[in-house]
Amino acid sequence: MRVHIIGTGLLGASLGLALSAKGHQVTLEDTSPTAQQLAADLGAGQVLNSTAALAEAADPTVADDATSPAAHPDIVVVATPPDVAARVIASALEDYPNATVTDVASVKTRLLEAVRELVTEPQLDRYIGCHPMAGREKSGAIAAQSDLFTARPWVICSDEQTPADRLGEVIAMAEDTGASVLHLDPRIHDAAVAKVSHVPQIVSSLVASQLRHAPLEEISLAGQGLRDVTRIAASDPGLWTQILTGNAEEVRSVLIDLRTELDEVIGALELGPGSTGLLAKAIALGNEGHDRIPGKHGQPPTTYAVVTILVPDTPGMLARLFKDIGDLGVNVEDFRMDHASGRKLGMVDVSVVPAIQQELEIGLLSKGWQIPESAIEKEGTA
Amino acid sequence: MRVHIIGTGLLGASLGLALSAKGHQVTLEDTSPTAQQLAADLGAGQVLNSTAALAEAADPTVADDATSPAAHPDIVVVATPPDVAARVIASALEDYPNATVTDVASVKTRLLEAVRELVTEPQLDRYIGCHPMAGREKSGAIAAQSDLFTARPWVICSDEQTPADRLGEVIAMAEDTGASVLHLDPRIHDAAVAKVSHVPQIVSSLVASQLRHAPLEEISLAGQGLRDVTRIAASDPGLWTQILTGNAEEVRSVLIDLRTELDEVIGALELGPGSTGLLAKAIALGNEGHDRIPGKHGQPPTTYAVVTILVPDTPGMLARLFKDIGDLGVNVEDFRMDHASGRKLGMVDVSVVPAIQQELEIGLLSKGWQIPESAIEKEGTA
Repeated sequence: MRVHIIGTGLLGASLGLALSAKGHQVTLEDTSPTAQQLAADLGAGQVLNSTAALAEAADPTVADDATSPAAHPDIVVVATPPDVAARVIASALEDYPNATVTDVASVKTRLLEAVRELVTEPQLDRYIGCHPMAGREKSGAIAAQSDLFTARPWVICSDEQTPADRLGEVIAMAEDTGASVLHLDPRIHDAAVAKVSHVPQIVSSLVASQLRHAPLEEISLAGQGLRDVTRIAASDPGLWTQILTGNAEEVRSVLIDLRTELDEVIGALELGPGSTGLLAKAIALGNEGHDRIPGKHGQPPTTYAVVTILVPDTPGMLARLFKDIGDLGVNVEDFRMDHASGRKLGMVDVSVVPAIQQELEIGLLSKGWQIPESAIEKEGTA
Repeated sequence: MRVHIIGTGLLGASLGLALSAKGHQVTLEDTSPTAQQLAADLGAGQVLNSTAALAEAADPTVADDATSPAAHPDIVVVATPPDVAARVIASALEDYPNATVTDVASVKTRLLEAVRELVTEPQLDRYIGCHPMAGREKSGAIAAQSDLFTARPWVICSDEQTPADRLGEVIAMAEDTGASVLHLDPRIHDAAVAKVSHVPQIVSSLVASQLRHAPLEEISLAGQGLRDVTRIAASDPGLWTQILTGNAEEVRSVLIDLRTELDEVIGALELGPGSTGLLAKAIALGNEGHDRIPGKHGQPPTTYAVVTILVPDTPGMLARLFKDIGDLGVNVEDFRMDHASGRKLGMVDVSVVPAIQQELEIGLLSKGWQIPESAIEKEGTA
């Protein structure tokens, strides 16, 4: 298929990588020439000189050839920030009169209403709203990954008016990214993301916000629980303001329910020892909700084994470590270092294919490296 | 040292494993014979026949020998559930009149008050409250790990009355587990854990609770953000009720601040489009708090500049990169790699002190490395 992607941020560039890898002809367009070129350099597709291509598209005598594959795209994917998505979708329906136009925005009801106001009824038949449920806390093409959508839900909001062939194209494209296609009504979609995405975002931000004025000695006690709860508190305020205002009604309704339960906990803490039943109930209700969350089968499976190596905090040691690993003929799939303050050691987690974990450990031990955990205890959780 | 551990759950058994590995003589005691034996079988220490040992301890004519190393422990560690900790600490001070007694409970002020009510002033001098900030969402000896405490904060709550030699023993034991020792006043400790542990727990439970009645098709949209925010919602209600009631005042105070900010968000969502400033502020305040959280093993909050380098996915390239960085005389504070499958490039984030960021970038560019983002755009978020 010929796929034209407008907006080469994290989602657009990742989609380009995924579809290019599957052999589709991908063209890229972004209002930022730098972002557009970066995505192309990373392999997400070919930069489209939009003006030239549109001129070509408007002139039916110009043949569809390799120099301008986007002149007649089968699908146009709008992957812009949500606040301009409706306008860009409307333009795309206008500019590419034969293409199916889809998008990746995370709120669907209001967007559909906005698009409906901008386009004609026949044009609307070519628009199929989508929401691939994938993301990272980093943004931009630089954070793009060809496997970002692998095994992730890809919501398609079609209706009875949607032509079957156009729907089929969008499904095929989504499936080629490795995503799992789901069909949902826009309203059900928006209620769902309020609970599974938007409210968790707000609450994560509120928890992190309480740390703003905490003395550093208090924050130094932070553990993995806090890190998990607040990981998404690093998200972009601009993007999230757009998302939350787009889904204000659904989000507000869930937050009000949450506040009622919060008030019960605050009341119980005030009551003292007699209130343990109320506190236990709050945690138990959380257990109940937690148990309904599907397992990690939404995630690409962890396929790597992790070897943790203690590395003295002196210049040149990392180079020595990676030279030693290279000399062992081992390919490093991923790595990270945790640097403990006040200690003369860093801990480097090296991810490798499981089959060579033991070989790597034996090799590194023989070269004098310290590997505190045995292979048997350690699981790949990179 | 001879260390006697009372309570062989996750923390007690992990401590036993860590100290045994360092050559200390560890004995284990638990009200559950099964738990006690499991911990011993895993290598956490030697089961103590408590009655026999106490009889022996009470009889000064019986020599301290290898068959009952716990008859005269140097340190007794109480690692029981928090609701019985005060009573067990008081018994230990009574039963082992020469030992230093410590504990691992996660709330310190009320526990100290409770112990004070149960023991005499001279006995109290032998008690030093501790809180090693380590844990897993799994519990019991079966989940024990000898490196559970490695590079984790180990809080010691001593005061002016604490004899220096006893304090030295506890510090030495904590450091032998690989933990980083911190000295905190019990009240400061409790205020800290309210913010970094107890409030995140409650909020995680409340978010999960909202999923109880959501249709499964809605929950199927769950992504990594929800999984992270709700991971600790799987925690044990019984244990957490004890912890929360033990620190009710501090937890309530933080929750009330959080509720005020929640009310602002709910109000903003009701106001509609004109309220984007309030929503952006809520997310931005979360960013601010998030940025203060130190990294996994206790590194200071982000003070480093991050340089992102594109690295071809071929053996030996990492070694070359780190050799080049070393040749530039640059010390790497932290690094991580993002490895995207389906791309022929990895992205390595190298953290350095900000003063040498530009020098590093110029040096690497001159050696032919690709650095897609300029120093100006990129912030340290390692």
